Amino acid sequence: MTETAPDRDGIAALAAELAGAAGRAILPLFRQSDLAAENKAQSGFDPVTEADRAAEAAMRALIAARRPGDGIRGEEFGVTEGTSGLTWVLDPIDGTRAFLCGAPTWGVLIGLVDATGPRFGVIDQPHTGERWTGGLGIAALATPHGQRPLATRAPRPLAEAILCSTFPEIGTPAEHRAFRRVADRVRLVRYGLDCYAYGLLAAGQIDLVIEAGLNDYDVAAPIAVIEAAGGIVTAWDGGSAAAGGRVLAAANAEIHSAAMALLLGDGRDD
Amino acid sequence: MTETAPDRDGIAALAAELAGAAGRAILPLFRQSDLAAENKAQSGFDPVTEADRAAEAAMRALIAARRPGDGIRGEEFGVTEGTSGLTWVLDPIDGTRAFLCGAPTWGVLIGLVDATGPRFGVIDQPHTGERWTGGLGIAALATPHGQRPLATRAPRPLAEAILCSTFPEIGTPAEHRAFRRVADRVRLVRYGLDCYAYGLLAAGQIDLVIEAGLNDYDVAAPIAVIEAAGGIVTAWDGGSAAAGGRVLAAANAEIHSAAMALLLGDGRDD
Repeated sequence: MTETAPDRDGIAALAAELAGAAGRAILPLFRQSDLAAENKAQSGFDPVTEADRAAEAAMRALIAARRPGDGIRGEEFGVTEGTSGLTWVLDPIDGTRAFLCGAPTWGVLIGLVDATGPRFGVIDQPHTGERWTGGLGIAALATPHGQRPLATRAPRPLAEAILCSTFPEIGTPAEHRAFRRVADRVRLVRYGLDCYAYGLLAAGQIDLVIEAGLNDYDVAAPIAVIEAAGGIVTAWDGGSAAAGGRVLAAANAEIHSAAMALLLGDGRDD
Repeated sequence: MTETAPDRDGIAALAAELAGAAGRAILPLFRQSDLAAENKAQSGFDPVTEADRAAEAAMRALIAARRPGDGIRGEEFGVTEGTSGLTWVLDPIDGTRAFLCGAPTWGVLIGLVDATGPRFGVIDQPHTGERWTGGLGIAALATPHGQRPLATRAPRPLAEAILCSTFPEIGTPAEHRAFRRVADRVRLVRYGLDCYAYGLLAAGQIDLVIEAGLNDYDVAAPIAVIEAAGGIVTAWDGGSAAAGGRVLAAANAEIHSAAMALLLGDGRDD
């Protein structure tokens, strides 16, 4: 069976159920006390890996029960083939290093892709209680302070733009030089936000996210959420970003073009 | 009147009241929509400055009403002399750039100092609902998920430590080289956390925070919170950090010594 008109309400309800289950699996292992972590390290217990695996297992079980025809690609447990033409792409903890530090910028990434690419996605931060949902006509941010529609920022010059990236030492030396060509032109660069940066882009807070070395499960949900909010996500060369790699996420076509021109440079790579 | 035995319960209650008032003043201006911010920019309205000033005004009014003998030093409205020997040191929004990006790593800093230095402090993050309180026998983190005591991490080698700093381009060239001597030895460096990093240090999540160019109102509350949790905060040369400047915050004496030795270098400054 090929599903040509996805069941939006069923998909959105299941995605919310998945995010809730993942959060319940992860939160008890977030910000473990120093003592507990050290005791458990002696027994070979790694709280991040444990949380990652428990969350993905919980999500896979729910998908199998609710929509058994869908495929699954997870960071931890690989591929389960489906028959519906739709595949859930799961990264239970995107931002493992933020998680280790206790910073609330990691997230649960839940994407739904078909042959054309990401169609629907959720970025969930269980500690802050924030959930970005985008695709199939939905574009919303729910927080403990309320719910609001997602919409990316209007165009503005690079000199007034905010750029986020996870690490200042992004990528290879050539990738780092390309990144710096954009970073040196913008008003403000912030590091260390992981997938939270994609949420801020979709919510109209920032203009650009530039990353390198990503996996497909890092980008499926962010692409769906950002596109639903009016933004653009491509590879640095303008091609599809769905496979990961070098990713340029932008609030609008104008700033996407301006950033891409700088990333591609003039062929001299300086 | 010189207050030799501070009224802990009164001070803690007032600090909580101040944090609540600041949060109520700031949150309506956090994550304004793009359109609202742009319309208001046309009329010269700056949401960050407005939030900063509204929060400090609310806190000053409460201090004047509840503890009129105390002095006040605020980032926005300067010094009000007191008679009690105690001075409230206020930074309504520490992490202005995080605030601009919509990242939840800015905070309200409320410190209480006497002639010996910081005695009590609160680091409050109103968006996430997290509040660190330390001093006068209190050391606690309250979040929407519950309350727990604060305690810094046990000693571990630099090679296993986590270091946070706000900007990778920290300080002057010499300060940057000193920072890199530590950064190149640790397991993990994270940027962009602002005062939230001090909270993570007090909560036992990270080992070191290294900053340069700070003001006194940036450090009064963090010093009190971190010391209450068992940590150490000094200038890079081991002197008092209460005036700001170059600050080294550490989870314990061992890692403080190890980091300070690298910051001071061997006199060749490389």
